[in-house]
Amino acid sequence: MKFKLEATDPKSNARAGLVTTDHGTIETPIFMPVGTAAAVKAVHKHELIEDIKAQIILGNTYHLYLRPGLDILEKAGGLHSFNGFTRPQLTDSGGYQVYSLADSRKISESGVSFKSHIDGMKLFFTPERVMDIQRTIGADIIMAFDECTPYPCDYEYAKNSMERTHRWLKRCCERFDGTDAKYGYDQTLFPIVQGSTYTDLRKQSAEFIASQNREGNAIGGLSVGEPAEEMYAMTDVVTAILPKDKPRYLMGVGTPVNILENIALGIDMFDCVMPTRNARNGMLFTSEGIINIRNAKWQDDFSPIDPNGTSYVDSGYSKAYLRHLIISKEILGAQIASIHNLAFYLWLVGEARKHIIAGDFASWKNTMVKKLDYRL
Amino acid sequence: MKFKLEATDPKSNARAGLVTTDHGTIETPIFMPVGTAAAVKAVHKHELIEDIKAQIILGNTYHLYLRPGLDILEKAGGLHSFNGFTRPQLTDSGGYQVYSLADSRKISESGVSFKSHIDGMKLFFTPERVMDIQRTIGADIIMAFDECTPYPCDYEYAKNSMERTHRWLKRCCERFDGTDAKYGYDQTLFPIVQGSTYTDLRKQSAEFIASQNREGNAIGGLSVGEPAEEMYAMTDVVTAILPKDKPRYLMGVGTPVNILENIALGIDMFDCVMPTRNARNGMLFTSEGIINIRNAKWQDDFSPIDPNGTSYVDSGYSKAYLRHLIISKEILGAQIASIHNLAFYLWLVGEARKHIIAGDFASWKNTMVKKLDYRL
Repeated sequence: MKFKLEATDPKSNARAGLVTTDHGTIETPIFMPVGTAAAVKAVHKHELIEDIKAQIILGNTYHLYLRPGLDILEKAGGLHSFNGFTRPQLTDSGGYQVYSLADSRKISESGVSFKSHIDGMKLFFTPERVMDIQRTIGADIIMAFDECTPYPCDYEYAKNSMERTHRWLKRCCERFDGTDAKYGYDQTLFPIVQGSTYTDLRKQSAEFIASQNREGNAIGGLSVGEPAEEMYAMTDVVTAILPKDKPRYLMGVGTPVNILENIALGIDMFDCVMPTRNARNGMLFTSEGIINIRNAKWQDDFSPIDPNGTSYVDSGYSKAYLRHLIISKEILGAQIASIHNLAFYLWLVGEARKHIIAGDFASWKNTMVKKLDYRL
Repeated sequence: MKFKLEATDPKSNARAGLVTTDHGTIETPIFMPVGTAAAVKAVHKHELIEDIKAQIILGNTYHLYLRPGLDILEKAGGLHSFNGFTRPQLTDSGGYQVYSLADSRKISESGVSFKSHIDGMKLFFTPERVMDIQRTIGADIIMAFDECTPYPCDYEYAKNSMERTHRWLKRCCERFDGTDAKYGYDQTLFPIVQGSTYTDLRKQSAEFIASQNREGNAIGGLSVGEPAEEMYAMTDVVTAILPKDKPRYLMGVGTPVNILENIALGIDMFDCVMPTRNARNGMLFTSEGIINIRNAKWQDDFSPIDPNGTSYVDSGYSKAYLRHLIISKEILGAQIASIHNLAFYLWLVGEARKHIIAGDFASWKNTMVKKLDYRL
């Protein structure tokens, strides 16, 4: 993997760059649609490319391990062959499930035991095992095994957890560096900064992560319920320390405003289930603000979903029709809204990139964030 | 509406024809994908046209009346404007719900009272009201209000119900003929033959329906649980009586084999939820037989879904991937399987048409029906 820093905004820490993998080049800042189980929910692969303009998508180690399972993925020749998305893919390590499945897992120094959310089957993830699994899944960018701490999190727990995540990182690097990619293309490992919302821990973690000298770095443990201002403060602390010549990935973030604010702080890569999950519930993100399509006010609004939208669904379907589909729980409603929201997220980061390159990102961002949260 | 009979198979009663409406011409025999609530489940409108080659789709009066409701449909300018499918559309009258919602409706001479399956709201459908509703929905072909009787059905009930359906038909025709289309294009009313599985009743009903001299005729009350042989026997009795110069629509049928057998008996139009409903459960219809994609045997079969298939999903996705999606309840699985099954149904009736025109339908049909039910 290579990273080329192309431009830096004069009035913020926003950056434009190029991440090159064996499956193609990604223009940053970028948003990665989430395809947890080897599919972005309700979206065809050709729609990801042609309508949404996705450059990279994200899968999840925990879910892929359970279904379809490593045996199938290996026989398929890896995730790209399996799901047919031939552009870059990234897999999260399962560290997020240490947080989200807190009731059915146990953490120890050696690793984490989970009870499968599907059938209760026990599984045990160690840093080494998670590297092996991600070698078999075969994403271009794979993530270190960490603990994503909850919010709020007491200082002692956050510190101990961070230190364990650091020890786990060493084990991840050792295993990763001692094994080969399986499918003829390169993989790279991103370590993850933790430290909850404690500035000193975040600094400490960022320094440790930077010292590992991997090809890219990630920030985890944010967007777990903390106020946005705390998230931005932590990002700011961490990006000041992480090397400038490597991409920075802020995991699980966030709303359109969160994304622009974090771009301003020097983040290059994002993922979040919000555009697809909220789409299925009828929430649409647009350049003029947020639409809850379930509201009665849209029931006889036959105007296009989003006149400023970039995908065919925006002009091809009306608000009234989409509202009817969502209210009626028609699958097509989820399809249309998911394409819209993802195309909007990709448009947004693409515009951010243009403005960074043009040198007027900061002022554009300040105008946009006022509109993005407005309830239409 | 116009119907042109183009060809008749020399060794069966199969026919090829053209039905022309103000929204375009339909080549018969034809299968109509079911879009109950103004959407074919899990399928975009451009997929209906480009990938599935749908020439006409079907909506449902009962469902559309409840959601989005007549007010919205009228403001939209009718169903075509509302859902954006600009080819012909047909609406069922609600007569099928008299059967399928038997526990929450009451039949009287004047009409049928229903309790909404959504919120328990009471509604009362009379033949006149159903004509008015279908004028407002605005399909090209609308159906008379009838009672679809269950199977088995005792003779007395079947006879009384049929006679009431005939009386209702007169009321439908009177109301339909006394009102105008609302959106600048023509509508036509198809009456429905009933009579359960009783040959004398079916004959009597077919004669009555034929005597009404509408532009097309339908057969209802079949495919409700009776053995296929009884269905074919009833179709045979009825098509011998219905005029040859008008299209014949067999409602709610059926499997691929049912469709070919009924084409051989002189049916021109079909609809059924089977290709979409079964798709969502992982059952795929192919020219070589039936695939239950949930079966473990497909889990590491990375071959295309259907090498003989006509839509892009058939070559663009593997069996193993589709199995994974269906097992994981990913919406994309329903999307892929629905496109496949509908494209297959449209291919099947298109092939039937070619063979009717070529004059070798009967032998082709006999070869095909042996393969279509085979479990792959």
